[in-house]
Amino acid sequence: MPEPSTPASARPQGRIAGPVLVVGAGLIGTSVALALGAAGHEVWLADASPENVRTASGLGAGTPVPPGREGDVALAVVAVPPDALGAVVSSTLLAHPAAVVTDVGSVKVQPLRAVLAGPAADEAARYVGSHPMAGSERSGPLAASASLFQGRPWAVTPHADADVDAVETVEDVVRVCGATPVWLTPEEHDRAVARTSHVPHLLASLVAGRLAEAPEQHLSLSGQGVRDVTRVASGDPALYGQIVAGNADAVLALLGEVRGELDRVIAAIGGGDRGGLEAVLARGVDGTRAIPAKHGGPARAMSSVWVSVPDTPGELARLFADAVASGVNIEDIRIDHDPGRPTGLVELVVDARRSEHLLVSLEERSWVTHR
Amino acid sequence: MPEPSTPASARPQGRIAGPVLVVGAGLIGTSVALALGAAGHEVWLADASPENVRTASGLGAGTPVPPGREGDVALAVVAVPPDALGAVVSSTLLAHPAAVVTDVGSVKVQPLRAVLAGPAADEAARYVGSHPMAGSERSGPLAASASLFQGRPWAVTPHADADVDAVETVEDVVRVCGATPVWLTPEEHDRAVARTSHVPHLLASLVAGRLAEAPEQHLSLSGQGVRDVTRVASGDPALYGQIVAGNADAVLALLGEVRGELDRVIAAIGGGDRGGLEAVLARGVDGTRAIPAKHGGPARAMSSVWVSVPDTPGELARLFADAVASGVNIEDIRIDHDPGRPTGLVELVVDARRSEHLLVSLEERSWVTHR
Repeated sequence: MPEPSTPASARPQGRIAGPVLVVGAGLIGTSVALALGAAGHEVWLADASPENVRTASGLGAGTPVPPGREGDVALAVVAVPPDALGAVVSSTLLAHPAAVVTDVGSVKVQPLRAVLAGPAADEAARYVGSHPMAGSERSGPLAASASLFQGRPWAVTPHADADVDAVETVEDVVRVCGATPVWLTPEEHDRAVARTSHVPHLLASLVAGRLAEAPEQHLSLSGQGVRDVTRVASGDPALYGQIVAGNADAVLALLGEVRGELDRVIAAIGGGDRGGLEAVLARGVDGTRAIPAKHGGPARAMSSVWVSVPDTPGELARLFADAVASGVNIEDIRIDHDPGRPTGLVELVVDARRSEHLLVSLEERSWVTHR
Repeated sequence: MPEPSTPASARPQGRIAGPVLVVGAGLIGTSVALALGAAGHEVWLADASPENVRTASGLGAGTPVPPGREGDVALAVVAVPPDALGAVVSSTLLAHPAAVVTDVGSVKVQPLRAVLAGPAADEAARYVGSHPMAGSERSGPLAASASLFQGRPWAVTPHADADVDAVETVEDVVRVCGATPVWLTPEEHDRAVARTSHVPHLLASLVAGRLAEAPEQHLSLSGQGVRDVTRVASGDPALYGQIVAGNADAVLALLGEVRGELDRVIAAIGGGDRGGLEAVLARGVDGTRAIPAKHGGPARAMSSVWVSVPDTPGELARLFADAVASGVNIEDIRIDHDPGRPTGLVELVVDARRSEHLLVSLEERSWVTHR
């Protein structure tokens, strides 16, 4: 009898060249495992809680690491709470010397610093942080789904000394999960999520806190608005405490702005300054319009900017940082590198209306571009 | 040939004893008109904008007031922006001397004060304010729907000298529209909506304001959370400016609390006080759990508390105020009054587990209850 062949649709493609280890079989880790498994990858699971591994295995997300095969792991995805990220990424780099390691944590600078200052500092080129913008009010492996990341943004945040191969492997993970990679430096990522996630969560908690001891009659007037505003505030306080504390600087900078604006609102209402009050409300309207449309919206014309990048450590990261500093959103990055050549060619895909600005901006920073 | 008979399903029932006039044919006014018309009531429309009346009429919401029939209006529903409420309620009371007048505005104390201090003060017994907790990001008559209020709370806020008949007529409007009446004093209503609507809106605007000038890369990480938190902030700044300014005292009291809590959050994050941060987040979780379930939830056992109420002005309002002060949520009120008797019997329907507390509380305030 012939051996059963892997169906074409389930044959893994791309750069993930062997078994995948998911460390932390909660909601996010198990969902990544399910998505990678569905794409034909062999997936192994580890978790401090044997119960989580049993549950995730039962869902078909993978199996425990077969004894003696630690060295075979080609890719490890660390999906543990923020406080543990630095230590677990470090130990994963050391335990799996052939593996590219990524994490899916909500903050990026703090774990990177911990890795670079820790026992696996010499292995850090294999580490590229990332962060899928997906979740659920539910948690744990039972809430997991292979489609959790479909169509969602997923930040990829290479550090200055990351291997190009590692960066591309992580991009593969993002695409296999059906998500859209968003390229950011770790620092810029943390500022971005302070604005789009951490500060909104904290203010939702302040609104919800006002309801906690409200008279029952007050609550009976709750409409859809207050339900929407406070929904995120139902998340686990211990987990969100870790996330916010792990991004303290960026969060504090924005909370300072919020406090100043709150003082202006209080002064405007107290002083009968209708214009001042409306200005704050109008700025809020502008903000709601600034959020990108969720499902596509009108398709935008894209164009590619080509840049020569010396194949030495840190250069690709310097290009990322300079592209980010230009203020142009990078929609896609393709890296064409040939180990035999001293430079690689990097293709940055951006909104066509912004490509000239990006070219000029990179040229001013001494990059060699190709028009 | 026999005259066509009104089908039973469209024959108006209850206390609305003649044509209904809706003043202000925007989203809310036109939706009320559609719901009352669907219940078989004759509906007339008025609006400062003839265009709105034409549009609403075209949707089948009603017709302009037939010339010379102003005196026939049995019920007028005033649905104009907050700044205009007091003046329009007053002029409506004077123009339609047989009508019960209600309004559907978002604040209740300010327009009541304007009516009591205005040219229609002597007619104020026919005025009972109300407030449906329903709306839409859209506005204007084209967004209207007869089902806008289905299953929503609708505050009814009688003032101290309101006629019992007027109160019951307004309760009929609420039920005809498919909403659930929530009984509150005007003052308590305004404190309730500051908490469940106005302050959530203002904080959503502060969150959204941080997005207005954010780098494009930051916004590309926007997930469902920030969309939910900021959705209400897309509302018309001029309208919400009127609402917030019209409820300044209650809003300022809560914003003062929010500011104090924000200072504590900033201190906790800046000082590495994880416990303090988690306490604020945990209080937010409690708040999200305090919001009543939207669709029923488990049916609760109800019980009725009967109270004798002297049939003199102000007594029914005093009972409302004392019931509210007891902290027990009043689910329904039924008034059994016979013009020939010096006292009426009022039935207060409450959660069965709370009825004893309400009885004791009312007896302490010298009400005659019937067990």
